[in-house]
Amino acid sequence: MEQQPLTAADPRFEERVRASFARQQVMATLGATLALVLPGEVQIALPFNQALTQQHGFHHAGVTTTIVDSACGYAALSLMPPGVGVLTIEYKVNFLAPGQGERFLAVGRVIKPGRTVMVSQGEVIATQGERESVVATMLATIMVVRDRPDVLD
Amino acid sequence: MEQQPLTAADPRFEERVRASFARQQVMATLGATLALVLPGEVQIALPFNQALTQQHGFHHAGVTTTIVDSACGYAALSLMPPGVGVLTIEYKVNFLAPGQGERFLAVGRVIKPGRTVMVSQGEVIATQGERESVVATMLATIMVVRDRPDVLD
Amino acid sequence: MEQQPLTAADPRFEERVRASFARQQVMATLGATLALVLPGEVQIALPFNQALTQQHGFHHAGVTTTIVDSACGYAALSLMPPGVGVLTIEYKVNFLAPGQGERFLAVGRVIKPGRTVMVSQGEVIATQGERESVVATMLATIMVVRDRPDVLD
Amino acid sequence: MEQQPLTAADPRFEERVRASFARQQVMATLGATLALVLPGEVQIALPFNQALTQQHGFHHAGVTTTIVDSACGYAALSLMPPGVGVLTIEYKVNFLAPGQGERFLAVGRVIKPGRTVMVSQGEVIATQGERESVVATMLATIMVVRDRPDVLD
Repeated sequence: MEQQPLTAADPRFEERVRASFARQQVMATLGATLALVLPGEVQIALPFNQALTQQHGFHHAGVTTTIVDSACGYAALSLMPPGVGVLTIEYKVNFLAPGQGERFLAVGRVIKPGRTVMVSQGEVIATQGERESVVATMLATIMVVRDRPDVLD
Repeated sequence: MEQQPLTAADPRFEERVRASFARQQVMATLGATLALVLPGEVQIALPFNQALTQQHGFHHAGVTTTIVDSACGYAALSLMPPGVGVLTIEYKVNFLAPGQGERFLAVGRVIKPGRTVMVSQGEVIATQGERESVVATMLATIMVVRDRPDVLD
Repeated sequence: MEQQPLTAADPRFEERVRASFARQQVMATLGATLALVLPGEVQIALPFNQALTQQHGFHHAGVTTTIVDSACGYAALSLMPPGVGVLTIEYKVNFLAPGQGERFLAVGRVIKPGRTVMVSQGEVIATQGERESVVATMLATIMVVRDRPDVLD
Repeated sequence: MEQQPLTAADPRFEERVRASFARQQVMATLGATLALVLPGEVQIALPFNQALTQQHGFHHAGVTTTIVDSACGYAALSLMPPGVGVLTIEYKVNFLAPGQGERFLAVGRVIKPGRTVMVSQGEVIATQGERESVVATMLATIMVVRDRPDVLD
């Protein structure tokens, strides 16, 4: 089924997502940047980095997971009013191809908005020259958190 | 049901797991070390590191996933004969508590050995002073790979 | 990590679980019965039935999933005070062996109690003569629902 | 990323899928029928049936899972040459809405074809009068099985 377009509860959603992303120190450690912020969709870019590889010289599956987890979580946060946070309860990732490529783009989209629970779908696309391939697909469950100052935004 | 003890096909399983782990450059980048290697069980330790945090100051879920993914994969590799590799097909992780603590221990165990597919269960335990808590639980499906020189060990 | 024993908020938890199970018409349709109700653990039994098979003559994976889903959900409900309901948000199941046997026992246990979200782990054990085998393992996320008369108990 | 169209290795794929479906006795027990068979996509229809409900009067999540599991598995089988079987290794399902409606349509699509492992995505759509809603979304890993007469087709 085609999904309805989503709308952000807060017109300053992009600013809030960018500010929160900037506080995720692991993103700087990996070299990941925020590529796109729309209501219900967030994209994160990561160039290939030898320091992030597993034993075969590909990006470690956990690194791929890290960027698509943030993309899925921020896709959910983009829909929230100010002062409300999100927490990833769980996710599943299928690895469709080795983490091989010059750069990776993680795309997270909310497929089920909700007042207390949201579901996001994610995809990581690797680019090598002209060639694109889907490296991983994620299904994530995200809890909406109110009245918890420790997990704001 | 209680599980039968597992036996390694290769008496030098620990050496092979340690050599492969040493080639996972992301482990050095994170500061993770191999804490224990048994047939069908591998443990990986990671001290808390500010550079690996998300916006609330906890370890990012993807970092927690990275170490328990490697623990689960190496638990499978420990049972394999030489010249056979493993590839993580997919995993699911439930996050049971924030990634908070002084150090983290990822424990991966094979719960279903197999000729072509193995299933591992993983757990990440955080330690803060005297207090231990389970931060995450993983269920992972791992493919056994033969005749592919690019994914040996 | 060893888990702490769980305690039920309602001394009449077994009665409530049994009454709810009796309203799950699909359980009668399958021929499943409630075998054990403890605080945080529920077991459901199902004899083999040709009418529930897939094309190879084994119980369909969805049938195996149905009984372990209910076991996991009722394990969560057993801990709840009266007037509070549970809803399965999502689950993952790994199938470790074909659904072959004379009878099946689904065991669901809460591994992470919580005020708004619970995590249960499930297992389905097949018995054939003297031989037992684990057919499936589940990891389920369950939402605790308050103030919704349509999903009570 | 948009996916390439898939092609069946066997021109008689529909016949083979229909013959295998007819042997899944659980489908007749539930009242499910094969609605569409394309290369890499299969749809299964199920009218609402009181005998399949859980305690709130909705279709049990396991019933919803059963039809979408078969849709995902047959989507994979539709791409296989004759004499090759498929086995569901594992799946994850997120439940997006209660199993409420007059009828349900499970749609399974292969998102990653492969020689030994395939990944399918599934969706269950409920219809109530004019209104359609997505009830569940599945991500399934399916193993391709050769030389095992017990799991042909």
